[in-house]
Amino acid sequence: MKKPLILVTNDDGITAPGLRSLITVMNKIGEVVVVAPDSPQSGMGHAITISDTLYCKKEKIDNGPQIEYSISGTPADCVKFAIREILDRKPDLCVSGINHGANSSINVIYSGTMSAAVEAGIEGIKSIGFSLLDYNWDANFLPCEKFVEKITKLAIADKSENLVLNVNFPSGINEFKGIKICRQAKGYWQDKYDKRISPLGKEYYWLTGSFINQDEDKESDEWALKNEYITIVPISYDMTSYKDLELLKKWKLNN
Amino acid sequence: MKKPLILVTNDDGITAPGLRSLITVMNKIGEVVVVAPDSPQSGMGHAITISDTLYCKKEKIDNGPQIEYSISGTPADCVKFAIREILDRKPDLCVSGINHGANSSINVIYSGTMSAAVEAGIEGIKSIGFSLLDYNWDANFLPCEKFVEKITKLAIADKSENLVLNVNFPSGINEFKGIKICRQAKGYWQDKYDKRISPLGKEYYWLTGSFINQDEDKESDEWALKNEYITIVPISYDMTSYKDLELLKKWKLNN
Repeated sequence: MKKPLILVTNDDGITAPGLRSLITVMNKIGEVVVVAPDSPQSGMGHAITISDTLYCKKEKIDNGPQIEYSISGTPADCVKFAIREILDRKPDLCVSGINHGANSSINVIYSGTMSAAVEAGIEGIKSIGFSLLDYNWDANFLPCEKFVEKITKLAIADKSENLVLNVNFPSGINEFKGIKICRQAKGYWQDKYDKRISPLGKEYYWLTGSFINQDEDKESDEWALKNEYITIVPISYDMTSYKDLELLKKWKLNN
Repeated sequence: MKKPLILVTNDDGITAPGLRSLITVMNKIGEVVVVAPDSPQSGMGHAITISDTLYCKKEKIDNGPQIEYSISGTPADCVKFAIREILDRKPDLCVSGINHGANSSINVIYSGTMSAAVEAGIEGIKSIGFSLLDYNWDANFLPCEKFVEKITKLAIADKSENLVLNVNFPSGINEFKGIKICRQAKGYWQDKYDKRISPLGKEYYWLTGSFINQDEDKESDEWALKNEYITIVPISYDMTSYKDLELLKKWKLNN
């Protein structure tokens, strides 16, 4: 049987250790092409580059068998560019990550990692975004690798179309409790702006803040991560709120 | 009764004619504060600025009663900054637009206009993104205004929480057929990359392409827009694919 073609990307940039860990695992499973941003793209959401130019550069970063390119754009740009300009056939899977930091709960909306997975889904390609709840550049991705391999193989074997998965690993854990299928927890960021003065005397701001979880339900990803489970949330890019459709049909719109 | 406090933003930038049209309507309905990007932010999706600084500037662009600020960031940044640093109370409504161009179907994912509305929703603020299917800077927004007013008043009067609406207006129409509640049509962009050579001899690319609608259903927004209706799609920022939850529970994950 022909090896599956796997497109690998991320949002922390092509040199990130989390990406190297993901490449290591994917090299065991398939033929690997890496198309990743040339610089960190965290918090880029589903941004695409339409008012600026894109550059593409062939890269050789380690001694693995994978082929690699860097792109001067966002994670969603990387997926689009890979499909249209680099790959000679449709990939069997797109994986993104392993992200240095959480993409659970509402973070999926801000996440460059997950935007790459969603972009692949829109293009009809199965995809998985992987994230570790540790923002350190030297985070330990090793304990994740056997689970990344397991989930990836199950996803490849699955017959359903347009599967997009958001996988998060808790950090600082000796042994994961297991893998849990979850829904996105309700939550938001309690933002703060740190005001400073530039050398020229101009006020400027840094966005900071902390995540507020509003959801204690055992089916939510936040509960499962707090309880040392690896979480999988299946993702939809149909953003229609079906429950609100019925509500709106009662509005007197056309008289 | 106290006038509702309305936060107005967009993704085409603070000087865009579509924003001016939206401000005109909102000044009839409430107390208006504009916090909009200082430069065009189309295609920014739900990007937020976390690796760079933000500047905020008080603006006076026309003679209306509204208060205005520009932000050196994305539409989602504008909403976050407005709530934390500018407004002295939670706004009753956030409106974004009127966008120069379509945000129907999958465009909602790439849209800066809609990311502002979604960000407000996450913060527990009712919101509406308005878009006209005309990319011209001098597009005619006048025919939209009475419908923008009507939909805004209905949204303010509605008692439900966290309502986020995606409203699109067909263009080049003498008279709209009416307003139709829809779901997001299935579709994607058939991207193309226009390869060019820089003065220094380096290859670079521009993203271009055309939208492919994969959905002829009469409940979809694409069908309604093609048939000259104004469309309203209610938006959810819970991206869980509930139908795939059941599928995944059949996977042999923990043995």
